[in-house]
Amino acid sequence: MKLSIERGTLLKALAQAQSVVERRNTIPILANVLIEAEGNQVSLRATDLDIEVVDRAPAMVERAGATTVSAVMLHEIVRKLPDGALVNLTEDGATGRLTITAGRSTFSLATLPKEDFPVMATSEYATNFSAPAPVLRRLFDKAKFAISTEETRYYLNGVYMHTSTAESGPVLRCVATDGHRLARIDAPLPDGAQAMPGVIVPRKTVGELRKLLDDDDATIAVSVSETKVRFATPAITLTSKVIDGTFPDYTRVIPTGNTRRLEVDASEFAKAVDRVATVSSERSRAVKLSLDEDRLVLSVNAPDSGAAEEELAVAYADERLEIGFNAKYLLEIASQVDRENAVFLFNSSGDPTLMREGNDLSAVYVVMPMRV
Amino acid sequence: MKLSIERGTLLKALAQAQSVVERRNTIPILANVLIEAEGNQVSLRATDLDIEVVDRAPAMVERAGATTVSAVMLHEIVRKLPDGALVNLTEDGATGRLTITAGRSTFSLATLPKEDFPVMATSEYATNFSAPAPVLRRLFDKAKFAISTEETRYYLNGVYMHTSTAESGPVLRCVATDGHRLARIDAPLPDGAQAMPGVIVPRKTVGELRKLLDDDDATIAVSVSETKVRFATPAITLTSKVIDGTFPDYTRVIPTGNTRRLEVDASEFAKAVDRVATVSSERSRAVKLSLDEDRLVLSVNAPDSGAAEEELAVAYADERLEIGFNAKYLLEIASQVDRENAVFLFNSSGDPTLMREGNDLSAVYVVMPMRV
Repeated sequence: MKLSIERGTLLKALAQAQSVVERRNTIPILANVLIEAEGNQVSLRATDLDIEVVDRAPAMVERAGATTVSAVMLHEIVRKLPDGALVNLTEDGATGRLTITAGRSTFSLATLPKEDFPVMATSEYATNFSAPAPVLRRLFDKAKFAISTEETRYYLNGVYMHTSTAESGPVLRCVATDGHRLARIDAPLPDGAQAMPGVIVPRKTVGELRKLLDDDDATIAVSVSETKVRFATPAITLTSKVIDGTFPDYTRVIPTGNTRRLEVDASEFAKAVDRVATVSSERSRAVKLSLDEDRLVLSVNAPDSGAAEEELAVAYADERLEIGFNAKYLLEIASQVDRENAVFLFNSSGDPTLMREGNDLSAVYVVMPMRV
Repeated sequence: MKLSIERGTLLKALAQAQSVVERRNTIPILANVLIEAEGNQVSLRATDLDIEVVDRAPAMVERAGATTVSAVMLHEIVRKLPDGALVNLTEDGATGRLTITAGRSTFSLATLPKEDFPVMATSEYATNFSAPAPVLRRLFDKAKFAISTEETRYYLNGVYMHTSTAESGPVLRCVATDGHRLARIDAPLPDGAQAMPGVIVPRKTVGELRKLLDDDDATIAVSVSETKVRFATPAITLTSKVIDGTFPDYTRVIPTGNTRRLEVDASEFAKAVDRVATVSSERSRAVKLSLDEDRLVLSVNAPDSGAAEEELAVAYADERLEIGFNAKYLLEIASQVDRENAVFLFNSSGDPTLMREGNDLSAVYVVMPMRV
């Protein structure tokens, strides 16, 4: 293998590959990236056995071939090379090393045989559709804060992507919950997604996927089978196993009879929650909401350290209500609101509370109250 | 106590106080800041028993008095208040709480009696002088990277500030070393500093002092006794115990007979060292310098992972030399060079190497070689 590639192009392609690689590996080759050069293209493949990413970039290939080297080390080297440099990669069959030259720098890295690299088995994907990057970005971004980190409830350690029917019609829906809060985000169902099986996309995949979705103009090809999900742009293909479990019936958790309606500026609300939570100890960060006509008082009482109170002008026309929440959960939910006011719908102080962005029903959040 | 103060003014004054406070305290009051209001001024005092900082700020004092509250919590609250807010602090003798109000926010913090706050004993300072902030900043900034972190060699855990005589005349000198590298920085001796006892300023004090030295136009009043050192601006007084130990005779370590002279662009040199060091494992980051006429080759050989080599055009007119250094030490020393080229003076591959900035003798660095 022998090729030349512009430093910036190689750096971008390596960025996602090295991010998938786990920092600690018991299997040495999992620390490596598989470099394959053919035609006028180089492809970089990395895996942790659950996720596989392949980045393709244009390169001047003088001699086709393939090898594997440390993903992190190659990324570090390329990152430190001067901007605009032309990078030459040459595999020396005799020494088993990959030589990297750029300007007056020469590096030679230990390789492992390309044959040992675990390439993920190809799957039959029953469902194939495409969606604009901003649509997928919204679905996952707004849901991911609610992903559970409890390893024993492994079936909650991801975002449940499935099809459903909302008031507006058929939707592509992402749901995440940790039992304390829940996010349910909808987008119009893309063509071809009708028969998609529901899949739980693992937390790490959601994180890696995020980098594919930055380009507002990109269209993402999505393929789904019972066991795998694949997201692809012309340059990057991200394939991931899905969580082998059953996502609980979340619909029972979403309250339908909550009628007490509070409307509040989401940013002002979040800042006030953050302020009053300062006085409480780390663990039980309970914030009390006291609602009266067009008036919300946020308060925290931490006997050891102090107390805090803040009043907000809000729209509320129902009877008096006092209800407590974990400050962190309130902050996270309030920060999901992009433009509009946050609308909270309460039932009693012991019942789950619903939150949405203005009158938009395509993003709904549920948060469990705390006794205060 | 009852006072009003502008949020930005209070935040600035609290910033240094809360920074001195240790995050984990066995003595509860050490987590607190002593607030004293009198005249048209509020003073904020914090200590860890080794360092004491007093910040003074203008305030509208309605009722003089003093109390103590959690430094971190008060700082957090003030930080989160909206910019431009007027903050009211009121001590309520009956409840033993300090009430903080701003806009529609009210906080009440637990207090501890001001009488229990450990105010540092006043000292007789035999030496008093003043120096421009940029001069002190340079002395400490350029020396501090070499401070030892080995607790058993406690006498190296700081910067040795003392008077000496250089070729240019009497100087105020800061020296730090960890046995592997050494920094010796000089400034012209300020009036009044002639009889100053040499003191070892602890690492934490050097860090806290840094914040006083940001203002280029400030003049810092320095007071030194055998046991304490004090740095003061009109607004802030930082008092610190000095390390009770004897700084070793560093002059023996500084080579005088090194004649092989290498001159190199410091920034290019640092970047090249950083690049070649990428291939080596974390622990023994040895970089080999191979010198020949006007040519420097940096190389690293890590049998497990790979090798790297980079050539630099330099000014070198002496005989061939190969010498190895810890990459981190080389990087840190090269990053001290502000404008000029770095000048290295070598003897043999086993002897300490001297580095300075161009022909400036007021900042000299020594680094021990490594076998490669």
